[in-house]
Amino acid sequence: MYFFGFNLVVSYLSLWAFLGLNLCCYYPCENSGVCVRFGTDGYQCDCTRTGFHGENCTVPEFWTWIRLMLKPNPSFVHYLLTNFQWFWDLLNNTFLRDIVMRFVLTSRSNLIPSPPTYNTKYGYLSWEAYYNLSYYTRLLPPVPEDCPKTDSPDPKVLARRFFKRKTFRPDPQGTNLMFAFMAQHFTHQFFKTNNKTEKGFTKALGHGVDASNIYGDTLERQHHLRLHKDGKLKYQVVRGEVYPPTVSYAPVYMKYPEAHPPEQKLAIGHELFGILPGLTLYATLWLREHNRVCDILKAEHPTWDDEQLFQTARLIIIDINIIIEEYVQHLSGYFLNLKFDPTLLFSERFQYSNRIALEFCQLYHWHPLMPDSFIIDGEEVTYSQFFYNNSLVMHYGVEKLVESFSRQVAGQIGGGFNSHEVVLTVAEMTIEESRAARIQPFNEYRKRFKLRPYTSFYEFTDDLEMAKGLEELYGHIDALEFYTGVMLEKARPNAIFGESMVEMGAPFSLKGLLGNPLCSPEYWKPSTFGGETGLNIVKEATLHKLVCHNSKWCPYVHFRVPSKESKLTPRKPPTEL
Amino acid sequence: MYFFGFNLVVSYLSLWAFLGLNLCCYYPCENSGVCVRFGTDGYQCDCTRTGFHGENCTVPEFWTWIRLMLKPNPSFVHYLLTNFQWFWDLLNNTFLRDIVMRFVLTSRSNLIPSPPTYNTKYGYLSWEAYYNLSYYTRLLPPVPEDCPKTDSPDPKVLARRFFKRKTFRPDPQGTNLMFAFMAQHFTHQFFKTNNKTEKGFTKALGHGVDASNIYGDTLERQHHLRLHKDGKLKYQVVRGEVYPPTVSYAPVYMKYPEAHPPEQKLAIGHELFGILPGLTLYATLWLREHNRVCDILKAEHPTWDDEQLFQTARLIIIDINIIIEEYVQHLSGYFLNLKFDPTLLFSERFQYSNRIALEFCQLYHWHPLMPDSFIIDGEEVTYSQFFYNNSLVMHYGVEKLVESFSRQVAGQIGGGFNSHEVVLTVAEMTIEESRAARIQPFNEYRKRFKLRPYTSFYEFTDDLEMAKGLEELYGHIDALEFYTGVMLEKARPNAIFGESMVEMGAPFSLKGLLGNPLCSPEYWKPSTFGGETGLNIVKEATLHKLVCHNSKWCPYVHFRVPSKESKLTPRKPPTEL
Repeated sequence: MYFFGFNLVVSYLSLWAFLGLNLCCYYPCENSGVCVRFGTDGYQCDCTRTGFHGENCTVPEFWTWIRLMLKPNPSFVHYLLTNFQWFWDLLNNTFLRDIVMRFVLTSRSNLIPSPPTYNTKYGYLSWEAYYNLSYYTRLLPPVPEDCPKTDSPDPKVLARRFFKRKTFRPDPQGTNLMFAFMAQHFTHQFFKTNNKTEKGFTKALGHGVDASNIYGDTLERQHHLRLHKDGKLKYQVVRGEVYPPTVSYAPVYMKYPEAHPPEQKLAIGHELFGILPGLTLYATLWLREHNRVCDILKAEHPTWDDEQLFQTARLIIIDINIIIEEYVQHLSGYFLNLKFDPTLLFSERFQYSNRIALEFCQLYHWHPLMPDSFIIDGEEVTYSQFFYNNSLVMHYGVEKLVESFSRQVAGQIGGGFNSHEVVLTVAEMTIEESRAARIQPFNEYRKRFKLRPYTSFYEFTDDLEMAKGLEELYGHIDALEFYTGVMLEKARPNAIFGESMVEMGAPFSLKGLLGNPLCSPEYWKPSTFGGETGLNIVKEATLHKLVCHNSKWCPYVHFRVPSKESKLTPRKPPTEL
Repeated sequence: MYFFGFNLVVSYLSLWAFLGLNLCCYYPCENSGVCVRFGTDGYQCDCTRTGFHGENCTVPEFWTWIRLMLKPNPSFVHYLLTNFQWFWDLLNNTFLRDIVMRFVLTSRSNLIPSPPTYNTKYGYLSWEAYYNLSYYTRLLPPVPEDCPKTDSPDPKVLARRFFKRKTFRPDPQGTNLMFAFMAQHFTHQFFKTNNKTEKGFTKALGHGVDASNIYGDTLERQHHLRLHKDGKLKYQVVRGEVYPPTVSYAPVYMKYPEAHPPEQKLAIGHELFGILPGLTLYATLWLREHNRVCDILKAEHPTWDDEQLFQTARLIIIDINIIIEEYVQHLSGYFLNLKFDPTLLFSERFQYSNRIALEFCQLYHWHPLMPDSFIIDGEEVTYSQFFYNNSLVMHYGVEKLVESFSRQVAGQIGGGFNSHEVVLTVAEMTIEESRAARIQPFNEYRKRFKLRPYTSFYEFTDDLEMAKGLEELYGHIDALEFYTGVMLEKARPNAIFGESMVEMGAPFSLKGLLGNPLCSPEYWKPSTFGGETGLNIVKEATLHKLVCHNSKWCPYVHFRVPSKESKLTPRKPPTEL
């Protein structure tokens, strides 16, 4: 590890300076001040617009001081939002819902710098970091190369001791596999780490919600997937039902085992989405939905050519409503009804652009969601039977798969000890990546997101065994790593994960969703979607419609298991059933 | 031409509809309403957030009506800003300067959609148009492909009859060649039309002020141009003076005649900048300035590596201050002292991003600036002696060239009849490009920029011969083309060009300058530029310093000729002398 706790080293700073070491290694600048090395033995903190001044940006300005006095603790706010249902039921039906929602959006997204700042190569602002979209951006600069190094715990040991599942721990929020596969399907349009290069690069050409997982990343791939008639995507019909085309019909690169039967090699926007039937399921649903939307558009606009139908359908398919009003809603556990309404930000200072951050990609490795095995239509399917098995999708059909995935509970993400053996290497690899990318310690990110840094491992987790083990391996809480931190932190009561995952993940997520150009005043109007009909499809999109407009019968479909099958009573019934 | 005047055809709309023609061809939607074709014979105007409603977005909402009542005529505002010097001299020293400047910035840049909208391929919003940076964007969609065509005047005829210089007409604002070469040097970092593809594409990888004209467009080119020591660029020393390196030392592609002497093949960021000694002059100045800034940075930051020195120097070199406070100031003729202060927009809703528009590129073809010949150190140099002649730069040195270019008056841009034979094909090519790109007529752009459309050629120009000729060729003022319009429109009294060039060019220009990430709250702070020293170089940059910090003696240097050498008295003396 590259870090000594700030509190420990402040008194040594003059000694380090004497030795000509880089003082920025010790994160002397508080409250998002920028550390710049001066001379051979000095540094300056740039406190511009942090609301603080002083050598290390520690002295609050008057209004900052007032704000800090009034600002409630994030956990208290979370408690309010996840309790007092009667209050929220009232508020959800008034104009106050808009005001609270606007506050949620602005307070979260204000934590994300836009335009973006650093990346894995550049720990200072530079044109290259701004302009070269092959990099993930970074919220905090990498630990400088010339900082003293200390030993870090073996990632294998960390994974085995703290991540590995003992017995399956279901998510107390009742999250199901339908959610888990949505998470994977949705986020992989913008998390595409390029493992062929040094760390910190992305293969995704866009930096946000662009539906490239459906339409392909490149124009060439897109054209292979398109029917070039009426705006539609290519498809095949199996036993009267529409599925993605085979790669022989839509010749795009897809990762499949070489010996895989050709009729099971389906062509999908994302080259890895043949790996899990859950992803193929979503690919099938979106394919059908895209073509359904094309029919609706064509009926209103018979003169439009294939290109205009395709492009307009794509803008309708770029799916933000379901993600905010159902996916994020579920994840939050809030009784506040989240609202996808871009006009809420039209009077705010808000940048309609987004750059995916490495930290966002790191914290989104939610593999504890994965169960021990899959229960499909009452039958148990093991991992080895599940991988690459597109025949499951065609055998059961989307209806039964949706029903099964919606009824099977997923694992709790936070708190550790819940990663299935099959996905355990992911935790190892993520920790290794974070080291190669020199990501700053967990507590530095706590501070960056206006959370109080933890003072000990015993505050960080209630699990004594884990606290002791982590202390033994890391030595000091300030040395705890970012990914280990967000994943192992104690979960909030009855929640899927801890405070840090929410307080750090939500800003990235909401900034990415609302920062989409579609949410800008220039784009958010009926004509963008071909008229009122298209805009209404966007505004009223639900997971239920996505499934039931594109299936023969309407299964149970939600992001949480039905109440009787959950250990805990869900806080409110699914709205669509 | 693709256009019939709106007023002429409104009554024929039902007839066209009956014939199944695309009614959007007749621009029925006023006030920036978006025309969408419905059915086979209908259209709808999307008036969202235009401030108007009604079938064709013609009925103002109440507040729009109030605003329209109160809004002064652009020519009146221009008159105020270019007269009453005593008033502005007072105002320039008060806080009111900031208020007026903020108003100038917001009212101009609000006319530019951001995120960008259309391009030459897409006359409707699409992900491809948003995301594919190879296109120039467009403010107005191209004329639809299925519109009825009529004959357009021969571009050669237009150029010969209305653009070709009779006798050199000096710019009444006293613009000099130092300005003309700055215009060319500066704008060619973002105007890089790709002539190898269909129309509407750009080769520039950035869409704004990124100093790619100095550092090269690609990382590879940049590295060839860099010394890789102390952040500096490669250079050569000739008779004790620093010049750009030869292409044998910095092996980058440069356009030179094949037989050009190798020692005169200088390597510059932009591959075409060897063509004119005026561009080589600026390249030399910026090269020296970059290396000078590197020395300053290195003195304060001896531990920084080559990369950090280079990148930080680049951010300092990206030159917005000189452009706003001197270049745009000169062009405007305003007595209001323009101010480059990004903080003016920190409380405004403003998007820190930019996309270069085809219309901006079109209107910036300012070739009438070019004189009949060049007077360098008292000697006349013809065009054929001037082209590719880098030996002029090394022979005279930057001091004498700056002095000569600053003392030689440039041609008036607006009003026609002032393009030298040598550059006359540029007008032809620009008109041809605008047709291939199906750019909407001049009057549609007048409306888009909230200007009253002209009702006749006799209102458009005071030159009777031109009015008659244009009427004969175009038939109707509503058929007049965009480029012909902005260039031939009558110039304002004693001004370099007419109302439209200012009212359409300024929004593109200011949005591009202030939309630079460097102007965002995230970037505009001392640490971005290595500390207060760097930020002050940026804030206090002037043309005078650019030259005199990098020359042996300090010549007369300004964007206007000295008063005694101008036909008209300049409105105020150059501030730096």
